[in-house]
Amino acid sequence: MRSAVLTAPGRFEIADVPTPAPAPDEVLLRVAACGVCTSELAAFAGTEPTDYPRHLGHEVSGTVVAAGPDATALPVGTPVAAWVTANGFAEYVTAKAAHCRPAGDVPLDQALAEPLACAVNAVEEAGVRLGDDVVLIGAGFMGNLVQALVGLRGVRRLVVADTRPDALERARAMGATDVVDVRTASLPDVVGDDGADVTFECTGSQAALDVVGTVTRMSGKIVLVGFHQGEPRRIPLAHWNWMAFDIVNAHYRDLAVIMRGMDVGMRLLRSGLISLEPLVTHRFPLDRIDEAFRTARDKPPGFVKATVTLEEPSRAES
Amino acid sequence: MRSAVLTAPGRFEIADVPTPAPAPDEVLLRVAACGVCTSELAAFAGTEPTDYPRHLGHEVSGTVVAAGPDATALPVGTPVAAWVTANGFAEYVTAKAAHCRPAGDVPLDQALAEPLACAVNAVEEAGVRLGDDVVLIGAGFMGNLVQALVGLRGVRRLVVADTRPDALERARAMGATDVVDVRTASLPDVVGDDGADVTFECTGSQAALDVVGTVTRMSGKIVLVGFHQGEPRRIPLAHWNWMAFDIVNAHYRDLAVIMRGMDVGMRLLRSGLISLEPLVTHRFPLDRIDEAFRTARDKPPGFVKATVTLEEPSRAES
Amino acid sequence: MRSAVLTAPGRFEIADVPTPAPAPDEVLLRVAACGVCTSELAAFAGTEPTDYPRHLGHEVSGTVVAAGPDATALPVGTPVAAWVTANGFAEYVTAKAAHCRPAGDVPLDQALAEPLACAVNAVEEAGVRLGDDVVLIGAGFMGNLVQALVGLRGVRRLVVADTRPDALERARAMGATDVVDVRTASLPDVVGDDGADVTFECTGSQAALDVVGTVTRMSGKIVLVGFHQGEPRRIPLAHWNWMAFDIVNAHYRDLAVIMRGMDVGMRLLRSGLISLEPLVTHRFPLDRIDEAFRTARDKPPGFVKATVTLEEPSRAES
Amino acid sequence: MRSAVLTAPGRFEIADVPTPAPAPDEVLLRVAACGVCTSELAAFAGTEPTDYPRHLGHEVSGTVVAAGPDATALPVGTPVAAWVTANGFAEYVTAKAAHCRPAGDVPLDQALAEPLACAVNAVEEAGVRLGDDVVLIGAGFMGNLVQALVGLRGVRRLVVADTRPDALERARAMGATDVVDVRTASLPDVVGDDGADVTFECTGSQAALDVVGTVTRMSGKIVLVGFHQGEPRRIPLAHWNWMAFDIVNAHYRDLAVIMRGMDVGMRLLRSGLISLEPLVTHRFPLDRIDEAFRTARDKPPGFVKATVTLEEPSRAES
Repeated sequence: MRSAVLTAPGRFEIADVPTPAPAPDEVLLRVAACGVCTSELAAFAGTEPTDYPRHLGHEVSGTVVAAGPDATALPVGTPVAAWVTANGFAEYVTAKAAHCRPAGDVPLDQALAEPLACAVNAVEEAGVRLGDDVVLIGAGFMGNLVQALVGLRGVRRLVVADTRPDALERARAMGATDVVDVRTASLPDVVGDDGADVTFECTGSQAALDVVGTVTRMSGKIVLVGFHQGEPRRIPLAHWNWMAFDIVNAHYRDLAVIMRGMDVGMRLLRSGLISLEPLVTHRFPLDRIDEAFRTARDKPPGFVKATVTLEEPSRAES
Repeated sequence: MRSAVLTAPGRFEIADVPTPAPAPDEVLLRVAACGVCTSELAAFAGTEPTDYPRHLGHEVSGTVVAAGPDATALPVGTPVAAWVTANGFAEYVTAKAAHCRPAGDVPLDQALAEPLACAVNAVEEAGVRLGDDVVLIGAGFMGNLVQALVGLRGVRRLVVADTRPDALERARAMGATDVVDVRTASLPDVVGDDGADVTFECTGSQAALDVVGTVTRMSGKIVLVGFHQGEPRRIPLAHWNWMAFDIVNAHYRDLAVIMRGMDVGMRLLRSGLISLEPLVTHRFPLDRIDEAFRTARDKPPGFVKATVTLEEPSRAES
Repeated sequence: MRSAVLTAPGRFEIADVPTPAPAPDEVLLRVAACGVCTSELAAFAGTEPTDYPRHLGHEVSGTVVAAGPDATALPVGTPVAAWVTANGFAEYVTAKAAHCRPAGDVPLDQALAEPLACAVNAVEEAGVRLGDDVVLIGAGFMGNLVQALVGLRGVRRLVVADTRPDALERARAMGATDVVDVRTASLPDVVGDDGADVTFECTGSQAALDVVGTVTRMSGKIVLVGFHQGEPRRIPLAHWNWMAFDIVNAHYRDLAVIMRGMDVGMRLLRSGLISLEPLVTHRFPLDRIDEAFRTARDKPPGFVKATVTLEEPSRAES
Repeated sequence: MRSAVLTAPGRFEIADVPTPAPAPDEVLLRVAACGVCTSELAAFAGTEPTDYPRHLGHEVSGTVVAAGPDATALPVGTPVAAWVTANGFAEYVTAKAAHCRPAGDVPLDQALAEPLACAVNAVEEAGVRLGDDVVLIGAGFMGNLVQALVGLRGVRRLVVADTRPDALERARAMGATDVVDVRTASLPDVVGDDGADVTFECTGSQAALDVVGTVTRMSGKIVLVGFHQGEPRRIPLAHWNWMAFDIVNAHYRDLAVIMRGMDVGMRLLRSGLISLEPLVTHRFPLDRIDEAFRTARDKPPGFVKATVTLEEPSRAES
């Protein structure tokens, strides 16, 4: 089968490798799509210490084509989203059956269960309550997922801040009560003196950390969804202490928690309560994976999420 | 001023009593409306040991007409919903300023903050999660409030059961995904083998307790909203133990919790996220309060909630 | 190997059966001990509809003697407590490696991880807080476990009620601040008007349900630890509603929760924070298992817990 | 009466001012003691922008000598700890009756309810579980309070780190399982690779923030008890995100939460479960308050906490 291998910064090669065989508790998936995750961009850029080659790809979906003897719950032919840690940019991938969730009628290139699981867990751990006022800083892919979920929870205000007009238009179309271009307007002014009950930081940037405490009410909640890679961040901790903010580090490494988030996310997709259709803006075939990564890196106007999609292979085994 | 006094079972008299004066931390409200609560029907019926006369009425709303020296946050003229424990069926009532919430543009006969607070607390304590399947047994006033709030929380299924066709029609109009007339259909069949994540018991009846454990999934949640007055109830506790149900006794006596529920409920009303307009089906002037109580007792078709409304008095002091 | 089989009510037979082989993710344990659980007594008595033969035994501990290829974390020779659902009354048993916990220096006949897990989860879900006043009704094995754990949490009062003088003596020796023989003294009188913050019901009896609500403060917590087998129970639900008790159904069917309880329980045993030495009062060899069950059923004075212990077998394979 | 007024940095004056009169819901306390809080040292040092004069003193205890008409629950003569925001360094102070808690037999100079409330809330919000391994960085007064409370919760290890030998000796005497002088030993080495379940940061310093993430396990908890005044802090947020730490900002501004902490703290003191006797190391009369503040600032060897104590005044009114 074909598999994309990152052999050096910026360079993917399509290797011809043996199709993996599922372990007793695994299924073999014919990959339909695998999303490009922001956390993979550092390996692509070569800006983090990394050994090459790398076999990236963990936002994978596909169809069950074979199963180990203990993986009988998912019949061959079932479309699923899977939780794997690597090797998703390939024609086939193995996954533990327990880590797969049926996709039902959800188009597989929209069945982005892993990032959706993160967003679900962030929103549930945030404890957004009925009638809350919510601020969301950063309207990229994760911010959009969080917005879609918060929008299901009966909040009063949902103020979205970003620096990109297209992102703010999209946020408004998704139901934001207010959108704020922080290059030209003051987010604290829009939020007002009462402050938000819950503020989601979805950028991973220092700039958002500087402002998040100024728009959240005393004893309110600050939810850190962004991944703050790179240099340590400067936090005005005296102010955060004084204001008694409840801080939620919305990052998850406990597999049971992650799978619970996937369960909920796939339920929401299958039932149509949310759709990622407007968010998957860029699709690339496997042999143009480098273009997918460059696009995810450059974020052209209108970009939200890039995914690598695989055509129906001509041969089931290769 | 005029005040309705329950002098004996089934008999209200309209007394002429002095208008109360607010204490330093109280406001005086000109009453706009006061809801008839199911918990007051036993005193009206004389079926509980009670000393008469009784000054009922605790679901009150009105306009601030005077304030004690420490109750300055609510200017005269502010329409509010208030938490009081009695004396609401009168032209004027005093309430602690800290127990009043502004009603904004909400019609005061719909500003039923106290029962709404209960429903808010029930739904929040139930911890309804994104994508949950929910069953609601009992589509009377409290059941309707719970349904309205659950409907804001991003659930997948919302199955409502009752024995009254008009109640089920209303539940469907409010957005139930399934309605079940339990006289003619099997609730467990409709719910299916997976069972509900959360089941709300909103009847206060033995019959509902018999069925609630048969429609809830293992480790799911049973929320007891109904007030189970009268005889002890028979609970199939062996089954409830075995199924490891999470039991929520959705009744609240901690004032801080009640006020938190009122805060949220009034936010939801003021912002239009919910409306009680379709639920306040019967209105009676003060001198027909006995009719209001008989209607609440008899529940004619189409009945949901009765309230006693007061006209603008011709004299502010009497 | 030898295995005890319940072939009919009251009748165990020691069968000679093949030693099981561990699956890839399992270990084979040479059984050291297996506790007799109260929930198994109905099958022994024949009072529940049951198909015979039954292979009881789920409170098992032993030493790893073999392991499947994926079960490498527990070397041969490791003493462990295991979570299994049956077959524990035998010389050998297989268990998933993920469901075993090292016993360290804990004597294996005291490594009763499964009931301890229940007690841990009950106490943690009860949310016993610093300085709480706690009442515990029922000082049998489960009650003793709960008491030992509550005693580690910094409570102010720990009142234990039972009808057996020996049980009350043991409770006092374990650190109860008050013990109450409910045949001769009034539990509500001892507890006093303030009521308990948390009351644990550890008997599984109707009588305890009748009293539990009379010794718990408004908005306090009632924790149902006992397994209420048999007839439905009568609950004074009007009172429980009015008092706004928080009800905890301390029964667990979610495996992750059970294993979390085992983790904690084994930590506590291994570190010496608690010891079950005084609780394992009766030990029987495998060929006297019927005597173990009759003792557990009859609860002679001084009885707390019976366990079946296995001697070092002369042959590792049989 | 005499009252200490901070008229300029480093300068207290003892003014003769009218004894305050209690409002209807207040009591008048004859002050017994008022602790010197670290948060007051900046005003004393003049390192924060402050208007003088300042009337400091919020860790106050005393005896009820008069009460407003609505403050009848605490009879004259009752010794109490009170929550006030200022004016505690005086012969008399008024406090809302609802914010006082009986001290029972606790010596009033040890009834430091306000800081104890913070520590109680920190430990309860941290959710320290049975058998947890806990690290505590900073063995000053707040660290000692946290240690005393954690020591009541059934933890396995309790590792205390500091730079002061006398502080580490005291921590060991209070029951730490390990003490680490971080000037000469490696805290991560002592904690080991498993990491702590919960780490309390009780210094308010940058140095502690640098280390706290290196001694806490994945998905473990970091509790920020210290008040990080001054410059923004540098947080290695990429690591904290990656490790999925649960971050608790253990600072409280919700009065109900603070009072709940005081309730528990006073319960613990009154029942003898904890004692602050070893922590109140320095006592000064009112006219030596400047010395109390200099001592709190300079922290001589053996210092933990300074308090200003008041002798029985010769005249009740002055």
